[in-house]
Amino acid sequence: MAYIDLGLDEHEFPGITGLLAFRPETAKPFRDLLNILLHGPHSLSAGERELIAAYVSGLNECVFCCTSHSAFAAAQLDEGRPLVEQVLANLDSAPISSKLRALLRIAGAVQQSGRNVTERLVEDARAEGATDLEIHDTVLIAAAFCLANRYVDGLGTILGDDAHYTETTKRIVESGYTGRRVPSSR
Amino acid sequence: MAYIDLGLDEHEFPGITGLLAFRPETAKPFRDLLNILLHGPHSLSAGERELIAAYVSGLNECVFCCTSHSAFAAAQLDEGRPLVEQVLANLDSAPISSKLRALLRIAGAVQQSGRNVTERLVEDARAEGATDLEIHDTVLIAAAFCLANRYVDGLGTILGDDAHYTETTKRIVESGYTGRRVPSSR
Repeated sequence: MAYIDLGLDEHEFPGITGLLAFRPETAKPFRDLLNILLHGPHSLSAGERELIAAYVSGLNECVFCCTSHSAFAAAQLDEGRPLVEQVLANLDSAPISSKLRALLRIAGAVQQSGRNVTERLVEDARAEGATDLEIHDTVLIAAAFCLANRYVDGLGTILGDDAHYTETTKRIVESGYTGRRVPSSR
Repeated sequence: MAYIDLGLDEHEFPGITGLLAFRPETAKPFRDLLNILLHGPHSLSAGERELIAAYVSGLNECVFCCTSHSAFAAAQLDEGRPLVEQVLANLDSAPISSKLRALLRIAGAVQQSGRNVTERLVEDARAEGATDLEIHDTVLIAAAFCLANRYVDGLGTILGDDAHYTETTKRIVESGYTGRRVPSSR
């Protein structure tokens, strides 16, 4: 159970979903931010951006977020779940483009500290064809998941069951992050 | 200089301000989130909430954010800058309420990892009178600065001069986070 009383059935609203329902004022801008970064039109595909989110969540050992965004990435990448698992297991050997690998290396540095991102890492990504906007958004996606992972685990929320991740994946892929379910009143 | 071309005079727009001008789409929801967390009506004063932001930014060694939010806290706390410096130097001995100290301990755990927040830390804050909303917002403020600190340092932005922090403090204290300066076209 979460460390605070969320006023809802946590099994129906596990992980971040219960927190977003508890505090709709802060949920609105956070959903808007995620929607632009992960779902809106972009030169990086939604699957690639979700892979950055899943990778950082894995490094932060946030099971709820890593499970969720791995599912969202798998559903939106042609190569599906096997590719997501290869990236999470070994970034160096995973069969992805050199550009995406360079961006994921930046994301991995951000996960440790903003100060760990070096001009060299950024130059490597640019040499593989990454644009300034792609580099910017990679840093911001990685930083946003350093927020989300801490929010979810810092308030002790519970994990979802398989049906939760399946249902959420369908909704996120179809409609993005700004739609929301409202808890029934108790 | 920042790692990417922000298309503006960085000396006029140091730290996060140049990043927000570079990407107004993501700046809007992030400013809205900070405004609710740090400036809007709340049972914790704006000075107390800015102290949480400054404390986490100090732990993350983000000089731009720690300097900025220390100034915003000092301007909104009766005890001013000396109290901010005492909290940053030694949380255990700083002359603050037991409730605020317990909330700052939660924020310090969040800075390391969401998984470092324990039920005991939360119970200690509650025993000192912290509400569920105050605990929630402390975790979210701390997590939001784990984002902001990584964003600012991960893109290699420059520090501001004294005039920058003075001008920003006046604007944030008076108007909050949703007003913005627009760079002159180059």
